[in-house]
Amino acid sequence: DPKLKIFALNSNKPLAEKIADAVGVKLGKTSVDRFSDGEIRINIEESIRGDQVYIIQSTSAPVNDNLMELLIMIDALRRASAKTINVVIPYYGYARQDRKARSREPITAKLVANMLETAGATRILALDLHAAQIQGFFDIPLDHLMGAPLLADYFLTHHLDENAVVVSPDHGGVTRARKLAEFLKAPIAIIDKRRPRANVAEVMNIIGDVKGKRAIMIDDMIDTAGTITLGAQALVDAGATDVYASCTHPVLSGPAIERIEKSPIKKLIVTDSIALPAEKQIDKIEQVSVGQLMGQAIKFIHENKPVSPLFKNRFH
Amino acid sequence: DPKLKIFALNSNKPLAEKIADAVGVKLGKTSVDRFSDGEIRINIEESIRGDQVYIIQSTSAPVNDNLMELLIMIDALRRASAKTINVVIPYYGYARQDRKARSREPITAKLVANMLETAGATRILALDLHAAQIQGFFDIPLDHLMGAPLLADYFLTHHLDENAVVVSPDHGGVTRARKLAEFLKAPIAIIDKRRPRANVAEVMNIIGDVKGKRAIMIDDMIDTAGTITLGAQALVDAGATDVYASCTHPVLSGPAIERIEKSPIKKLIVTDSIALPAEKQIDKIEQVSVGQLMGQAIKFIHENKPVSPLFKNRFH
Ligand SMILES: Nc1ncnc2c1ncn2[C@@H]1O[C@H](COP(=O)(O)O)[C@@H](O)[C@H]1O
Ligand SMILES: Nc1ncnc2c1ncn2[C@@H]1O[C@H](COP(=O)(O)O)[C@@H](O)[C@H]1O
Repeated sequence: DPKLKIFALNSNKPLAEKIADAVGVKLGKTSVDRFSDGEIRINIEESIRGDQVYIIQSTSAPVNDNLMELLIMIDALRRASAKTINVVIPYYGYARQDRKARSREPITAKLVANMLETAGATRILALDLHAAQIQGFFDIPLDHLMGAPLLADYFLTHHLDENAVVVSPDHGGVTRARKLAEFLKAPIAIIDKRRPRANVAEVMNIIGDVKGKRAIMIDDMIDTAGTITLGAQALVDAGATDVYASCTHPVLSGPAIERIEKSPIKKLIVTDSIALPAEKQIDKIEQVSVGQLMGQAIKFIHENKPVSPLFKNRFH
Repeated sequence: DPKLKIFALNSNKPLAEKIADAVGVKLGKTSVDRFSDGEIRINIEESIRGDQVYIIQSTSAPVNDNLMELLIMIDALRRASAKTINVVIPYYGYARQDRKARSREPITAKLVANMLETAGATRILALDLHAAQIQGFFDIPLDHLMGAPLLADYFLTHHLDENAVVVSPDHGGVTRARKLAEFLKAPIAIIDKRRPRANVAEVMNIIGDVKGKRAIMIDDMIDTAGTITLGAQALVDAGATDVYASCTHPVLSGPAIERIEKSPIKKLIVTDSIALPAEKQIDKIEQVSVGQLMGQAIKFIHENKPVSPLFKNRFH
């Protein structure tokens, strides 16, 4: 029977440890560091010949370094005769560049998919891809996990009252909000942003009833936190009693932390798909781990069992 | 007739300007910058439909960022219907990772070649690849230019006396040293490094006559400058009157500048294949430009003429 081995690169070692624990194996021995000139040096320090190898790497910032670590690791594993190379990518960077929004733009999310395949990946395990269409950018099998059940688990034991309403910060996120609302047995509302004319500030119109209710916002990722904090203010203005927010991927770049601190958001619940550096670990932010979820998925894949039960039901 | 267009990315804009001048065109309009989270944003700001496009980019440090800029630009050009996408890569990063020196190492130089092709490059123009075998990593046409004729031009008008000897700092560089020696009509010598036993300092043995002579060392790249500065000291110890050094690619990472300052090297002549930040522009270092050479090569390629005359003879 081919052995299951898990290797962690540098983007998110704490999550990789949790995943390995959930699977019940130790992380494989490897060193991933830099030559003097900044080029990536990888040495795999144990034989993986004939093994089923899983690599854990989020392509979060610094995205290009993390992506190249992943590609070079895949190359090394392929040349070292791994039987399968399964790429576990809790956060898929460049996912927003998934179409030409203007002429002569790249489609970097597809380029990344092509590069992973060219390097030698044989399977992908992803979590809340920004657009589900990115699944079709790959010609190898891809399993797509959802963070909403985990976030639902959190809210079912924290901050939930009978008066809750789940809010999607934009039209694109309604499916996700409905999923969370189902788990929480709550109604949904949608924030409808509209720019009446060019160069005029956006108007936030709320579709659904939030007055006197506890609002729970959900998004797939929070980057500069503009959308979520403006939305939170709009909810308060519309009479929500308090506002909680949640997302799978805490990108949190630029002004994000300051905006969240200043916003009426009481708590922001995120997953550990992206590791948070110390300066982003503020009191308002709570992290729930996807380690168990991804570990279970790896076990199911290794045993040739479907992973869909992991996201059809809530995850315990 | 398809138009010739040249685009510069961020690694070496001064060289790109020189190349465009030599070709007699203006650089194409493009913006290559970053989103808030560090992901690369590229916008090509003029139509390139049906054009023959040349991209100028060295994959010097920060190598992963520069490489991703290049790959994403190729993707954008391909999707914008460029007729050909010619990648001009004055310095090819990851070139030293061109073979498995130990078990389970990647061959990153090949991975990079595959990624350039996957992205959509149709031709490569390179300069002094660390190993000529890297040409064979590509399945698309590649023209390979040499820096030695340019360095020869410099020495023929500076610092040359009848008593010069060209020195290769190791066995691997003898062909390059012989090339320079031919241009300079000078003899050659070779530094023969040998480690008598494990954990014993290397002995520098000089093959050839350097006593009472002006030594001119040549290498393809100088990275941490250990080899070249130890070699320079060995030449002085063997009676060389003075030592000059030259290379095509001034990588100059880590302790390089300090070592060069402290060494007996009088002048180090490098090309501008890699742009030197202010702190590396010291008095001892002089840069000669490959702009004319690469510009000529682009013209010849565009006119379907062979580029070999550019490196068979000295370059004026
Ligand atoms: N890293 C990024 N940060 C901000 N915006 C991005 C990023 N990558 C792509 N985009 C832009 O985001 C838009 C797509 O976002 P969305 O509508 O949320 O799918 C496109 O217009 C992209 O140009
Ligand atoms: N960026 C780098 N800096 C220093 N050494 C490297 C680098 N990339 C690869 N190498 C190592 O350099 C050796 C090849 O160098 P060479 O013998 O000069 O071709 C291999 O053992 C590589 O592992």
